[in-house]
Amino acid sequence: MAGETVITVVGNLTADPELRYTQNGLPVANFTIASTPRTFDRQANEWKDGEALFLRASVWREFAEHVAGSLTKGSRVIATGRLKQRSYQDREGNNRTSIELEVDEIGPSLRYATAQVTRAAGGGGGGGGQRPQVQQSNDEPWSTPGSNNGGGNSGADAWSTPGSYGDDTPF
Amino acid sequence: MAGETVITVVGNLTADPELRYTQNGLPVANFTIASTPRTFDRQANEWKDGEALFLRASVWREFAEHVAGSLTKGSRVIATGRLKQRSYQDREGNNRTSIELEVDEIGPSLRYATAQVTRAAGGGGGGGGQRPQVQQSNDEPWSTPGSNNGGGNSGADAWSTPGSYGDDTPF
Amino acid sequence: MAGETVITVVGNLTADPELRYTQNGLPVANFTIASTPRTFDRQANEWKDGEALFLRASVWREFAEHVAGSLTKGSRVIATGRLKQRSYQDREGNNRTSIELEVDEIGPSLRYATAQVTRAAGGGGGGGGQRPQVQQSNDEPWSTPGSNNGGGNSGADAWSTPGSYGDDTPF
Amino acid sequence: MAGETVITVVGNLTADPELRYTQNGLPVANFTIASTPRTFDRQANEWKDGEALFLRASVWREFAEHVAGSLTKGSRVIATGRLKQRSYQDREGNNRTSIELEVDEIGPSLRYATAQVTRAAGGGGGGGGQRPQVQQSNDEPWSTPGSNNGGGNSGADAWSTPGSYGDDTPF
Repeated sequence: MAGETVITVVGNLTADPELRYTQNGLPVANFTIASTPRTFDRQANEWKDGEALFLRASVWREFAEHVAGSLTKGSRVIATGRLKQRSYQDREGNNRTSIELEVDEIGPSLRYATAQVTRAAGGGGGGGGQRPQVQQSNDEPWSTPGSNNGGGNSGADAWSTPGSYGDDTPF
Repeated sequence: MAGETVITVVGNLTADPELRYTQNGLPVANFTIASTPRTFDRQANEWKDGEALFLRASVWREFAEHVAGSLTKGSRVIATGRLKQRSYQDREGNNRTSIELEVDEIGPSLRYATAQVTRAAGGGGGGGGQRPQVQQSNDEPWSTPGSNNGGGNSGADAWSTPGSYGDDTPF
Repeated sequence: MAGETVITVVGNLTADPELRYTQNGLPVANFTIASTPRTFDRQANEWKDGEALFLRASVWREFAEHVAGSLTKGSRVIATGRLKQRSYQDREGNNRTSIELEVDEIGPSLRYATAQVTRAAGGGGGGGGQRPQVQQSNDEPWSTPGSNNGGGNSGADAWSTPGSYGDDTPF
Repeated sequence: MAGETVITVVGNLTADPELRYTQNGLPVANFTIASTPRTFDRQANEWKDGEALFLRASVWREFAEHVAGSLTKGSRVIATGRLKQRSYQDREGNNRTSIELEVDEIGPSLRYATAQVTRAAGGGGGGGGQRPQVQQSNDEPWSTPGSNNGGGNSGADAWSTPGSYGDDTPF
């Protein structure tokens, strides 16, 4: 792909990510990032919140499950991806368009938080860019659409055992 | 600040972040992000690694402690910040420059991993942009209820010992 | 300003920029950039156009006049700025939002074109970032020696006529 | 290509672009962009220049010739591309690395200037992304290595006749 419009957004999730599965069983997570700029008010000598940008975002495959299992309403995230325009008809039948973020990478910001990171089973090493789809043969830890009840990371056992992660880092 | 050169980098840490303290007690963490592009080789019909970009990065204050407590060698991260040029003399006395990343936001990528996120004590809510320095004077810096028991931040002791650091800039 | 969502877009203007003046005489130019990604179709062994992103953009002050005097329908541009969300009511009275680009820098792409550049009178030198508003009160705004004779900006008359523009914001 | 580190830089050329030709006759232009951030000094109540970032950049093919024919020392530009690291040996035989910008798009900023844009012969319409190499069958207007003597745009005639550019814009 060439000539796409790439963007990085920093903000907070307005709600828990909604995890769903396509008919083919492909996971997808949707959520909204609210990014609030701040202006320094020279008269008041203080920072003030500007008007927030609300950007709808989606992420696919195992990556979607990682997002749904790790982020919640209010999480401050850093996300990068490509802007996509989507056409649809509203209830009155008018043609509308919306702009959304197709996420390439996302993670919790460490500015005001810490994170305990667990490599996904099968995830493996370092490389950049795209990567062949990770196999996932366990009992579908997040197969309940749109929810994550009972402990947030209840599925963690499935992929929290990196086991020997001794020396396979590429560095 | 206006007119700065902003950049987003995705890659893997080449080593654990080095956390140090200035004489004034200001924490700073330094690390290197290796970002490896991938090209699709049409003849071989497969993705191949390109040449990596190694970018030296720094992060300050509590944020530095969060990074040092959350990321390790090999961690895949997404980082955004401003490119800075630094002048120095090498051992032969030649003037050299290097380009480094002053991190504004960084987090572990969830592409191949999950994360259990804990809000820093005193860190609080949502806002964007810069924020006044978070106070952090209690004994258990991230003891947010209901989370992170049993070892998660067991390395905390390791980096709460300032040690000695010569002058005010860590470079 | 801190924490804004910065974006760079490359694309073509869908029409000539519309230059207007606020009641206070402040120039503003509005236009739409169409950015078309391209995908390599491995089966057909050729590049194909993806779905275009249409991004509405605005630019202010002398900068707006420069844009209106230099770019036309079809111009390929590179633009960087901040994403802004705008709320409005459609004809049915529903609340709607749109995302627009507040341009910080824009120029004609030299990928498939050349440009003869003329510094704006009073514009002066190099500096980055914002700059106090340039005065521009002479009769031939861009009459820098040795350039731009013979028609180049023949459209200037068209946009030097403020006309009427209702209220202070052009939206 | 996936996973590359993309960056947008705004700044001024420190010198005229150097245009050279490879042994195969492929044009390449090299130049340095100086990007100077500005900080608002609250005490002095004015903007002050920060430390400049100097980024070496390169651009290839007809695009290189367009750059060399359009931009000069001091030109304010907006450029986007990918950061590349280059390894080399200095005179003492030490291994060194430098970071450079492989330009994807560049153009003169219209913030303090206007531009008269001329589509390159054979350049054609709107599309994004990469494009097959433009034919150029004239008398090699810039074939003198590293120079652009006698009038800057002397080659303009060769490609300044877009002729009927009536309605072939894709919009």
